[in-house]
Amino acid sequence: MKLRLATPGPTEVPQRLLLAGAREIIHHRSAEMEELIHEINEGLPPLFGTSRPVYTIATSGTGAMEAAVANCFSAEDEVLVVSNGYFGERFQAICRNYGLTVHVVESDWGTSVDPQRVAEAYAQHPQIRGAFVVYSETSTGALNDVEAIGRIFRDTDVVVVVDAISGLLVHPLDMDDWGLDVVLAASHKGFMLPPGLAFIALSDKAWTAVESSSGPAYYWSFERLRHFYPMSSSSPAVSLLLGLHESLKMLGEEGLPDFRKRHATLGRAAERALRELGFCTFIQEPHRRSHVITSALAPEGIDTSQLLKTLSTQYGLTMTGGQAHLKGKLIRVGHVGAADALDLCAVFGALEMSLLTLGHRFTPGSGVGEVVRTFHTFHEEVK
Amino acid sequence: MKLRLATPGPTEVPQRLLLAGAREIIHHRSAEMEELIHEINEGLPPLFGTSRPVYTIATSGTGAMEAAVANCFSAEDEVLVVSNGYFGERFQAICRNYGLTVHVVESDWGTSVDPQRVAEAYAQHPQIRGAFVVYSETSTGALNDVEAIGRIFRDTDVVVVVDAISGLLVHPLDMDDWGLDVVLAASHKGFMLPPGLAFIALSDKAWTAVESSSGPAYYWSFERLRHFYPMSSSSPAVSLLLGLHESLKMLGEEGLPDFRKRHATLGRAAERALRELGFCTFIQEPHRRSHVITSALAPEGIDTSQLLKTLSTQYGLTMTGGQAHLKGKLIRVGHVGAADALDLCAVFGALEMSLLTLGHRFTPGSGVGEVVRTFHTFHEEVK
Repeated sequence: MKLRLATPGPTEVPQRLLLAGAREIIHHRSAEMEELIHEINEGLPPLFGTSRPVYTIATSGTGAMEAAVANCFSAEDEVLVVSNGYFGERFQAICRNYGLTVHVVESDWGTSVDPQRVAEAYAQHPQIRGAFVVYSETSTGALNDVEAIGRIFRDTDVVVVVDAISGLLVHPLDMDDWGLDVVLAASHKGFMLPPGLAFIALSDKAWTAVESSSGPAYYWSFERLRHFYPMSSSSPAVSLLLGLHESLKMLGEEGLPDFRKRHATLGRAAERALRELGFCTFIQEPHRRSHVITSALAPEGIDTSQLLKTLSTQYGLTMTGGQAHLKGKLIRVGHVGAADALDLCAVFGALEMSLLTLGHRFTPGSGVGEVVRTFHTFHEEVK
Repeated sequence: MKLRLATPGPTEVPQRLLLAGAREIIHHRSAEMEELIHEINEGLPPLFGTSRPVYTIATSGTGAMEAAVANCFSAEDEVLVVSNGYFGERFQAICRNYGLTVHVVESDWGTSVDPQRVAEAYAQHPQIRGAFVVYSETSTGALNDVEAIGRIFRDTDVVVVVDAISGLLVHPLDMDDWGLDVVLAASHKGFMLPPGLAFIALSDKAWTAVESSSGPAYYWSFERLRHFYPMSSSSPAVSLLLGLHESLKMLGEEGLPDFRKRHATLGRAAERALRELGFCTFIQEPHRRSHVITSALAPEGIDTSQLLKTLSTQYGLTMTGGQAHLKGKLIRVGHVGAADALDLCAVFGALEMSLLTLGHRFTPGSGVGEVVRTFHTFHEEVK
């Protein structure tokens, strides 16, 4: 059975990138690697909207989140964590693990955090050293206004740490202009690569924080990363770097504006198709939807666990459901990276067939029809 | 130009493993992954000589070294670091980074540490909580007697942490029997894979230390690894896991005894060939030689920097030189992983041609001849 992924990451990796990663391994202190790294280091910063270096390390997104905490803060520092989902909670857990005092600006799962509430929390806790926020909260599909949140702290000493792991590339992010200090990303979302690489971009303000931090860090010590830059501080994940080099080329060929249009259209199409099939999309206006995934509550009588199981066992399609308290209630249709209109047709084809199997009634083709209609309209629009 | 590696890791990755890693990405919470992980988790422990789980994380060997420090100790704990090279020094640096008090049993680069000196240091510092030792010190090619060192601490509370990153598989390691508590390894040495995965095996004594440790750790928190086991705690490096699954199959097909015989013969052949070409092998009796690399000081008048440069620019062969104070003096012929007799013939072919270019005088073929002779004798011996 052909295996497909409609997950928020790992995403399907285009064959071109899989094969780039299957090239012969080059040594991390060789002329070939210098050339490869040079092009990667040139290609990454514009994607983060920064003129400063972006560091690449072998770890997952969680490792990058921890690296930010370990390098920029010290035990007992007070920080603000903006939290409206699973990954906001992860930031809290890591901060507490490092002994930081955490003030939480909590917002319901499925909502975007109101930047005004962040400003109020800051007024209440002016002594905070950092503010953590997730750009695209993949557990729900909500997008946070990191631009507005960044601007609150722009002219302060507060270090703004942004988990842009799934949001980067898919949504605009202008680190330098928005006043973001630590921006984290990973290979297995918009970059269309296998998991295993994380990216860290740092502002001057972040570097000042690094200098006064007493948190322990070695492998992902920012000072060590800077010391070895442009090369890697430890043995890098060479096959993933070979893939990254090719991924940057692919992103350059499509261009970020088209990449974003494609994701916006995928999001719109998925949303319409889900509604047509009786689902209730989870992120409601005025909250902002991430274009990484489209999440929705199942129609009455449909057990999403069974639905996901049917999708995987009958059709080889992996889709994820809700995390934590949303387990069993939500499905999350991932369409980040290389996903295109036809991939989404296949996904909704599988979804329709599985729903029929589970006894749900609707006109076959009505979901896929919305995908076709949305993309058709989109193409007309941009002509 | 065809690129070749004669480095102590990353090693050349067999095409079979490169292509396994280029398979379509599967999701880390899917039935396919469960099956893959199950087989990996079954396959790893016997290679470490343990009956307990071996944890796999996406990081380099350095990350695994740091994880051991972060998880098993607390600031101000006293520890012993056995140090006879670059990686022993790295253990010291990481321990100090985490605020541990470090007592060093230092031995010259190029020597194996005398276990008696470790026992003496322990008698002098009976309050130590841990002892760190590198099995195969890749910076010099010396092997440490971790069996004897492990036995010193076997019936004590001292946690013995072994960097077996390059030594595992190539040399015997019987964790449970030898009394080793934390054994670290990585994907890009004996496993013949690209860098990016690290392995951590833990004894019951190590788990007791974990429980009383106050060092911060999240991404590589051992408790988190155990909590999610058999699955991964974070998005795993899927392509490397696909490769690992195939690597375990290949190791099984060759069998560890033959794998080790091959490496021992590669080491012996490289040593003889280097001597024949006028090099002086760096590890001298009674010190023990690792079969991961063979290191040697260049003949009078040969600048190793120029030699390595000629090898890479003229023949596409990457070989590494000395680290730290041995820079410019040493060459390290790597032959770990999938390297075989014919690879070593190619390596010595390149070495001979480069030496001729640099004006060194010897009978062409005399180095490669020793490789041929050694392997021929070896095959005769095992007939």
